[in-house]
Amino acid sequence: MNRNSGKVDTFKVNSELLDQFREAADRLDSALLSELTMNLHPADIAEVLSHLDKDAVAFSLDRLDDEFAADVLMEVDEDIRRDYLETSTPKEIAVELIENLDSDDAADVLNELSAEVREEVISEIEDEEQVMDIVDLLKYQEGTAGALMGKEMVVVNENWSVMHSVREMRRQAEEIDHIYTIYVIDDDEKLLGRLPLKKLLTTNLNARMADIYIPETRYVKTSTTQEDVTSAMEKYDLVALPVVDLAGRLVGRITIDDVVDVMREEAEKDYQLASGLSEDVEQTDSIWQQMRARLPWLVIGVAGSMLSAILIGGYEEAIKTLPALAFFIPLITATGGNVGVQSSAIIVQGLANKSLSTTGILPKLGKELRQSSLNGLLISVLAMGLSILAFNDVNLGITISLALFIVILFSSLTGTFIPLLLEKMKIDPALATGPFITTMNDITGLFIYFIVGQIVYSTL
Amino acid sequence: MNRNSGKVDTFKVNSELLDQFREAADRLDSALLSELTMNLHPADIAEVLSHLDKDAVAFSLDRLDDEFAADVLMEVDEDIRRDYLETSTPKEIAVELIENLDSDDAADVLNELSAEVREEVISEIEDEEQVMDIVDLLKYQEGTAGALMGKEMVVVNENWSVMHSVREMRRQAEEIDHIYTIYVIDDDEKLLGRLPLKKLLTTNLNARMADIYIPETRYVKTSTTQEDVTSAMEKYDLVALPVVDLAGRLVGRITIDDVVDVMREEAEKDYQLASGLSEDVEQTDSIWQQMRARLPWLVIGVAGSMLSAILIGGYEEAIKTLPALAFFIPLITATGGNVGVQSSAIIVQGLANKSLSTTGILPKLGKELRQSSLNGLLISVLAMGLSILAFNDVNLGITISLALFIVILFSSLTGTFIPLLLEKMKIDPALATGPFITTMNDITGLFIYFIVGQIVYSTL
Repeated sequence: MNRNSGKVDTFKVNSELLDQFREAADRLDSALLSELTMNLHPADIAEVLSHLDKDAVAFSLDRLDDEFAADVLMEVDEDIRRDYLETSTPKEIAVELIENLDSDDAADVLNELSAEVREEVISEIEDEEQVMDIVDLLKYQEGTAGALMGKEMVVVNENWSVMHSVREMRRQAEEIDHIYTIYVIDDDEKLLGRLPLKKLLTTNLNARMADIYIPETRYVKTSTTQEDVTSAMEKYDLVALPVVDLAGRLVGRITIDDVVDVMREEAEKDYQLASGLSEDVEQTDSIWQQMRARLPWLVIGVAGSMLSAILIGGYEEAIKTLPALAFFIPLITATGGNVGVQSSAIIVQGLANKSLSTTGILPKLGKELRQSSLNGLLISVLAMGLSILAFNDVNLGITISLALFIVILFSSLTGTFIPLLLEKMKIDPALATGPFITTMNDITGLFIYFIVGQIVYSTL
Repeated sequence: MNRNSGKVDTFKVNSELLDQFREAADRLDSALLSELTMNLHPADIAEVLSHLDKDAVAFSLDRLDDEFAADVLMEVDEDIRRDYLETSTPKEIAVELIENLDSDDAADVLNELSAEVREEVISEIEDEEQVMDIVDLLKYQEGTAGALMGKEMVVVNENWSVMHSVREMRRQAEEIDHIYTIYVIDDDEKLLGRLPLKKLLTTNLNARMADIYIPETRYVKTSTTQEDVTSAMEKYDLVALPVVDLAGRLVGRITIDDVVDVMREEAEKDYQLASGLSEDVEQTDSIWQQMRARLPWLVIGVAGSMLSAILIGGYEEAIKTLPALAFFIPLITATGGNVGVQSSAIIVQGLANKSLSTTGILPKLGKELRQSSLNGLLISVLAMGLSILAFNDVNLGITISLALFIVILFSSLTGTFIPLLLEKMKIDPALATGPFITTMNDITGLFIYFIVGQIVYSTL
């Protein structure tokens, strides 16, 4: 039975399965391991390995055949891969892993190694063509189309006949998982166009490629950012996208599965930043890893709150006279925070899915002002009503509602402006969401609140 | 020149282009409109239309040829599509739109119409086969594989020869954008396996399909949830996934582009909920739409803060005696909020990418308790130091740090527990993030703070 069998929604890691893997590792029982892994997809095994300790992981990977183990290694988290590869020699990494990978995966793995080990591994790769492909890919900067693309694709020359192309294609296709499209180039390797696979099945075998290819093709340059690649493939429903160098030569292609991974990573990154996590972290990560991701924003929050404390401290006498002023501190900070996060989230999401640009900041602020005036008015009236009802003090009600209105306007404007500004400065705008905006709005909101209080009580 | 030409990263909506579209609409200038739309992809035109008013949208769509207009209509936001279709007759919708769509898109559009209009439109569709496909798709519940799948796929019988299959495939392939894979069924329409397209190119034409197909294939049932479909296609790097009914008959297939859309929607939904937005909203949406998305959580926040005000009000005398207690209200609420959001975000994200299950809640809470004890200790010590430094009051420092420690433990536990509980209750766990968790933690945090204060000051 093939390893890829079974319907997709059956696999779930369970403690029984984990125990069997552990038992196989403890007893060095290769037969049991083969039995356990036989019907599993590499991604399933990777999921299992994420629950096992280093020794059991190493035992499992060592006993799988190289090609399959390579697939599993590309599916596990980076820290598991790093731990495993640290125990391998450069020659083992080259022969057992790299030579079984597509060029883009190979380059990714090599990028995770130290410069020294990387060089040693490359010198051990036997396939000359693969070495050239990999060295070529390694030169592109992370986050660009060049770093995302693979070298595996079917390429034919415009002067070839269909028959020659089909023969050539069969040869090239051997090592490619999905073909999608055949790319047509000229003698200078410049990208001319493409030919859908199904057209090959319906064309006269003697026709020249130049006569039948579709001349236009969407493509990106090696320097295009991965965000632009993602949004283009998503927008135009592409499954593969050719990549050309500055001279227009076809140098690689990006496939949809890579882009799906990028999309997931980007969405998770934005979500984490909005939630006050400074790095990628999972519940299954160690307590120390979690601390590294969680502590920074907590500390910034504490520092900000200390400034708030000092600010409120300046109004100690006012609070002594009128303690009710203190009752509404959470109202001011919570509302300012909520409004600011809403505003910045709308901007960050618009920038992420490309429905928004950083041009025309003023009209955007104008619209936000109209929108937040409306919300501010309703919220202020509601708060005035509730506070007078609860505490029976009209001056207090006026102070609260007036301060709240100003705080809502202010928070929505900064929430809109800051992510747009960060984007313009080429800083991830998602940094502006979450604890940053709430901490900043806490301080300014309280400042506004006490100033308004001072004015209301000294004039009314 | 073909409509799809041009490299992908050139198109940007600009005000000049918008003005030209408006001009074309104002002058009813069809020639100008053709010129403007000639080199644009349907997705680009959809982007342009999102910036135009109803009349200009209607003019543009009416002047494009039906098939192209149908593609554009599938790319615009639902509200634009609804506005446009409200001005069309059922016959127009059937002939100009539905008949030019793939079955899954056709079913989606029909689902957006009222039941009455839907019936009229279906009765106007002339292609009998399409009617059956659509009626079949309409019966599946939204959010399941059945509702996501399309009927367009290449299917061959196991008893056919390769030659017959290729002929049949060419016929079927006419109306399919991407083929990816050929599915093989038996006489009862049961799914047997698949045949990669490239294998057809390398096989003896007289071979029977039964002898060459790959028997195993990953598939889902019509009732599988779209979350499971998404995570399976993502996990196993699939570009197409066959769907079978309860009897195992092949009834449709889901393609990667649909799943990419679902992924984007789900990620945006989680992000919005975490940001206090109750529905999908964009900066370009009207002020009223934004209000509908933003006001609910703001009102809940105000209501929660009123409870906080009443709670603090119960300690009016304490604040009069020791106003410094009030200075640290933002510290308590901000830290509780930040910790709670961090904890719930880690859970929500783990549930979303399937790295986490709802089994073993207790061990998860145990780990969270260890992690937050550590963070809590560090944060408390820091806050004690800073507060004593700033206000020179040891009792206050003890109150703050002790309260903070308890608040951090409490917030991290509820932040972990509530999304897991919601998931178990089949409610979207992302609801627990954002304003919900911060509002709840504000109230309980303050309660803890004043209780601790009372105890510290009465005993020390």
